[in-house]
Amino acid sequence: MFKDPGRGGALVKVAVDAMGGDFGPSETVKGALQAMEAHNIELLLVGDREVVEAELAHYDIKGKSVQVVASEGKIGDDEHPIEGLRRKPKSSILVATKLMKTGDADLLVSMGSTGASMASSVFLLGLMEGLERPCIGGPFLGVAPRTVLVDMGSNIDCRPSLMVSFGALGSVFSHEYLGIENPKVGLLSVGSEAAKGNRQVHDSYELLQESHLNFIGNVEGMDFFTGRVDVIVCDGFVGNIIMKFTEGLGTALSRYVEQRLAGHLPADELGKVSDDLWQTTNMPRTMGGPLFGVNGMVMIGHGSCRASGIAGAIDTGVRCAGIGMVDSMRQELARLASAGALKS
Amino acid sequence: MFKDPGRGGALVKVAVDAMGGDFGPSETVKGALQAMEAHNIELLLVGDREVVEAELAHYDIKGKSVQVVASEGKIGDDEHPIEGLRRKPKSSILVATKLMKTGDADLLVSMGSTGASMASSVFLLGLMEGLERPCIGGPFLGVAPRTVLVDMGSNIDCRPSLMVSFGALGSVFSHEYLGIENPKVGLLSVGSEAAKGNRQVHDSYELLQESHLNFIGNVEGMDFFTGRVDVIVCDGFVGNIIMKFTEGLGTALSRYVEQRLAGHLPADELGKVSDDLWQTTNMPRTMGGPLFGVNGMVMIGHGSCRASGIAGAIDTGVRCAGIGMVDSMRQELARLASAGALKS
Repeated sequence: MFKDPGRGGALVKVAVDAMGGDFGPSETVKGALQAMEAHNIELLLVGDREVVEAELAHYDIKGKSVQVVASEGKIGDDEHPIEGLRRKPKSSILVATKLMKTGDADLLVSMGSTGASMASSVFLLGLMEGLERPCIGGPFLGVAPRTVLVDMGSNIDCRPSLMVSFGALGSVFSHEYLGIENPKVGLLSVGSEAAKGNRQVHDSYELLQESHLNFIGNVEGMDFFTGRVDVIVCDGFVGNIIMKFTEGLGTALSRYVEQRLAGHLPADELGKVSDDLWQTTNMPRTMGGPLFGVNGMVMIGHGSCRASGIAGAIDTGVRCAGIGMVDSMRQELARLASAGALKS
Repeated sequence: MFKDPGRGGALVKVAVDAMGGDFGPSETVKGALQAMEAHNIELLLVGDREVVEAELAHYDIKGKSVQVVASEGKIGDDEHPIEGLRRKPKSSILVATKLMKTGDADLLVSMGSTGASMASSVFLLGLMEGLERPCIGGPFLGVAPRTVLVDMGSNIDCRPSLMVSFGALGSVFSHEYLGIENPKVGLLSVGSEAAKGNRQVHDSYELLQESHLNFIGNVEGMDFFTGRVDVIVCDGFVGNIIMKFTEGLGTALSRYVEQRLAGHLPADELGKVSDDLWQTTNMPRTMGGPLFGVNGMVMIGHGSCRASGIAGAIDTGVRCAGIGMVDSMRQELARLASAGALKS
């Protein structure tokens, strides 16, 4: 299903913000080392040196390519991202992003403050030409693993040209990462007819139709599951609500199934079914979300990830880095920009 | 859980648009007769006389209070609602709504074109004072049966004052129908802090905060399931996407569970579990959606309803009619209007 040059392929240098995530270095270090088992990677663990080295001491890393890169402090979820970057120039996310800028790393993985990771990436790596903001996208449902959603929540009020760039970036991801030929791009709305939708949909519809993308028109909420469309475009307001709604519903349904089946299945089997159901509605926790639109491969993980989620995000990022995702996206945006589609 | 004056209580006269719904009179008539078993109702089946009478001939209705009220034709889902009403003045939805206007019916139930049912209700029954448009609301998740969502899809671009009226109408439904004291009203957004959200959320936030409603601030996608909030307010664009997304996800997950459990449970038991899971994500198909804001009790059903869904919508409507939902909503809106909250 996936192109896979990372595995057993060229060495990928991975900078991990070891201070990020709700569980901090104990999980990030564990997850990063797990990822080494599957991929040919060089690990750069960025964080407070003593803390990270204390974690590393729990593992046998002899002969493995693992380095600690010292930073000071972290930017919390409760801090304003830009202010945080200003006040903490040596924070883990900034030091890790600098490794990308200097070419010492090929991939950045962060489970820390999403705002700070995005701001740091934009600030140090720069936005791709033609783009006004980056976005987060990818598949997010185990029951619809080939349906890509962009934007997952990074852009709240979006101009039509930004919506078109979501379509282009999602399209490249769908083609390059999922191997889908000529991905069908749809605009999330309340009906499939062109007239259905809010003002934003109407304006974006026209621009998408004029673009070179394989735009199939409006799609609806059920189309995440129908196979009608490969890339679903919406603003980050709607995208974020859908993502969090799905997580909540998945948790509620896995509890429901556990109660509904109690007594019908052995307890351990029941637990596994319930876990699987939860997993299938919480895919970003297991594979991370790629940050689209900055000049470098950056993976943003869910703050509540455990080690396996961190390993999963590294896995996704290594695959993306290996197939040159960033270059392909840059080319696609240049094509849109030269047609004037990113101006309104 | 429910106040229940309909059951065994005063007679409720129910007008059913017998021509509506994807399966037409065979299911509407069957469902309406089913509802008679649980409630003290007088049934007015509105439709092409011969067609409806032919359906009725399959049942023993001796001694039952069932009348056929003749109409001519129906307005289809593919027709423009207002044009349809103009071109077909004797259509089933118009004749049924007239029965409400003349006081010959206490409750209207329609599974036909939602647009036509709404337009007919607004045109003949009128909007409640202070309101610019009606809306559809109610609980929609079996795993969160006490969380009310307004609007479910009838208003795409909404001004802040309309969002406040959604909060008021949902609040009355939550209090009167679900028996929740002082329902907590939340605004659906991308974070719980006041600063989080799009322009519409910011503007509506202020108005809601100034209102007499028990406004708790912004809520997020997962809060449908957390018990933090009783009434979730969003525009119909987001509401419709969530509703359809939930239906799609429910269908996909029930298939997933069926495959996941194959061999672990007997086939018939497995089928029941899968059905239950589907049902719990498709609540509006079993209970209908009340139309809020018109001067009369109107239930809008899902077009794909079978008889049980029609009986369910009648059941919900009879309960609402019995507790004077429409009067309570009118009073609540008057209170908002007198405070000037419905003007911007």
